[in-house]
Amino acid sequence: MNDAPEIDELVPPDRTLMGPGPSDVHPRVLRSMATPLVGYLDDYCVEVMNDVQDGLRYLFQTDNEHTFAVSGTGSAAMETAFGNLVEPGETVLVPDNGYFGARMGEIAERAGGEVVTVEAPWGEPLDPADVEAAFDEHSPTVFGFVHGETSTGVRQTSVSDLTGIAHENDAYVVADTVASLGGVEFHTDEWDVDAVYSGSQKCLSAPPGASPITFNERAVEKVRTREEPVRSWYLDFEGVWEYWGEERNYHHTGPISTLYALREALRLVSEEGLEGTWDRHERVAGALKEGVEAMGIGLNVADEHWLPTLNPVRVPDGVDDGEVIDRLIEDHGIEIVGGLGALDGEVFRVGCMGHSARPANVTQFMAAFGSVLADGGADVDPEAGAGAAASALDPK
Amino acid sequence: MNDAPEIDELVPPDRTLMGPGPSDVHPRVLRSMATPLVGYLDDYCVEVMNDVQDGLRYLFQTDNEHTFAVSGTGSAAMETAFGNLVEPGETVLVPDNGYFGARMGEIAERAGGEVVTVEAPWGEPLDPADVEAAFDEHSPTVFGFVHGETSTGVRQTSVSDLTGIAHENDAYVVADTVASLGGVEFHTDEWDVDAVYSGSQKCLSAPPGASPITFNERAVEKVRTREEPVRSWYLDFEGVWEYWGEERNYHHTGPISTLYALREALRLVSEEGLEGTWDRHERVAGALKEGVEAMGIGLNVADEHWLPTLNPVRVPDGVDDGEVIDRLIEDHGIEIVGGLGALDGEVFRVGCMGHSARPANVTQFMAAFGSVLADGGADVDPEAGAGAAASALDPK
Repeated sequence: MNDAPEIDELVPPDRTLMGPGPSDVHPRVLRSMATPLVGYLDDYCVEVMNDVQDGLRYLFQTDNEHTFAVSGTGSAAMETAFGNLVEPGETVLVPDNGYFGARMGEIAERAGGEVVTVEAPWGEPLDPADVEAAFDEHSPTVFGFVHGETSTGVRQTSVSDLTGIAHENDAYVVADTVASLGGVEFHTDEWDVDAVYSGSQKCLSAPPGASPITFNERAVEKVRTREEPVRSWYLDFEGVWEYWGEERNYHHTGPISTLYALREALRLVSEEGLEGTWDRHERVAGALKEGVEAMGIGLNVADEHWLPTLNPVRVPDGVDDGEVIDRLIEDHGIEIVGGLGALDGEVFRVGCMGHSARPANVTQFMAAFGSVLADGGADVDPEAGAGAAASALDPK
Repeated sequence: MNDAPEIDELVPPDRTLMGPGPSDVHPRVLRSMATPLVGYLDDYCVEVMNDVQDGLRYLFQTDNEHTFAVSGTGSAAMETAFGNLVEPGETVLVPDNGYFGARMGEIAERAGGEVVTVEAPWGEPLDPADVEAAFDEHSPTVFGFVHGETSTGVRQTSVSDLTGIAHENDAYVVADTVASLGGVEFHTDEWDVDAVYSGSQKCLSAPPGASPITFNERAVEKVRTREEPVRSWYLDFEGVWEYWGEERNYHHTGPISTLYALREALRLVSEEGLEGTWDRHERVAGALKEGVEAMGIGLNVADEHWLPTLNPVRVPDGVDDGEVIDRLIEDHGIEIVGGLGALDGEVFRVGCMGHSARPANVTQFMAAFGSVLADGGADVDPEAGAGAAASALDPK
């Protein structure tokens, strides 16, 4: 027999989560996770699932029947969207202006798709004219775009223009809203998006592990008329819908505690109201933006594409970004992260999502960030940053 | 704008979970889920992952480096095993004596495999002679078997014989231990199994959502020399190992709270010791078995293949199984389930796993079960059942 390991009591350090997710989890959501379980086919579990579906339809602003939570984290939802909608040999158009557009391509390829890209610089959104040109050139069947790019902090506006182009070309549109849903405006039905997915650990202040997704009838019809089965059994829409649809039959065991958490998170959104949560994110992240700008540091995104939930703060000259990130977490318990891909070393990524989109988090962050930057040799005035943020947050 | 739904406070009914999982979750595990999160690349999260891997190696009785938790429920672990090991065109041998053997086949087919079966009646294990004959006939590359069949309550013994046959034929062996690992003896290395997976919500008393898996070097070598990429991106071994291996690089966001829970569950196993937990399952489930037999009702499995964690209790003559199941949950808050497939209507499936493998659960179950059966018209003596179980549990 191998020996038993020694495992100590679970005592995580205090953290203030201002990175790209997870966000701070709301105390009511944490408490819901400690609730004893019922079976995954228990009548009460079915009620929990109904509540989750009602809450998600509100969150997505959709009447889509086929709205549910994937039993995995955000990338599992991404694979559920592309893995079901894409059939082998179909052309799939994805953006190349961020990390998660590239991931869409990897997943579509595994599904057997032929991937083509529409280009834009990292730090800018897609231009509808370029999307139109890509449709003319490649005639894709499925088009994916990222509403809030976690890797760049860019918000894709003109969503209706994009879906209009796709639908004129008889294509299906998938939107990634992992870093945006619940934090900024999104209207699934009004904007006519065929499939939309998200995560639980960003704007919803819940732990990762159950990920929102919705398909409209047009998308479901495409999935149901596939010639080949979906390549993943676990993420197969038809199978999963056996559990989430009217039948409530066993497909796989649902992540019950995580569904409790998602339900409580959606209950919080419903209580605050979506307009309320959108306003809060804009106001609180707006204070962060003003604080950063008052220190003479800009965001690496144009104002009209600013994504309040994920702020790409430029690394000031002469500053070692890794050192700043380390000092923030080691000395202040604050998590932020660096840039990815083309923005590596160029930006800090500062999240302001869900329960982390609170005045207390922003004032704590601004004080620590200014002090660490000044210590790190940046030519900034920490007091100006903290002062501007505090002033913007002042309710008077 | 669509209106916000009304969602009430989360107040599940009291349940005693004696079905095929989830089991009752240990209070320490529940509490761990309410612990505030750290980021998924935080140094502390890496420590949590290290502890989980140490605990899983002990649980699996293996020195395999490639031991980790899949970010999904048990079927996601099943797909991780077959989806990575099976390449298109390879022949995959699976059992046809239970529901989960059939699922192995469905998943292997999605991976591009050609599926063949080795037969045994539902309620009996595979006979090594039949496995040998199937190898001779089909020359499979991958052979899957179920160590503890949740659908039948049968324990596959002679595991070393099975792996011996497979390895003589240069095939790879995958074991499903979802309903057995931690509850009954299993020795990954000693029995020479190439890949083994399990679930968290059965013998480990944790919520579903992070599922144990281990691959030996031989299996990893096969995965690494694949000609085609794995068809699921989310469950791709190489990608997932970027996160769980030495690099600890981002692949997808790990289900942090569920990893906390799994860690606490493994800590409990390490404290009790594996032999201790195996003994407890045998003793407590043994009392349940004696109680049932004292009422003149048998288990639908031979003693030498009895799986203490999942007891297929025969439905007595003249009894409506669905009515008994409904009365147990409605009047007593106790969850058990009916038979599946060939055993539908023939057996009740009564779990006795993890934190549900406690004397209190068995005495509560025996009292309620006997009373409901007698009310339902069965010719049984409830007092004999409760008495026999209590006597078997008496520590004197």
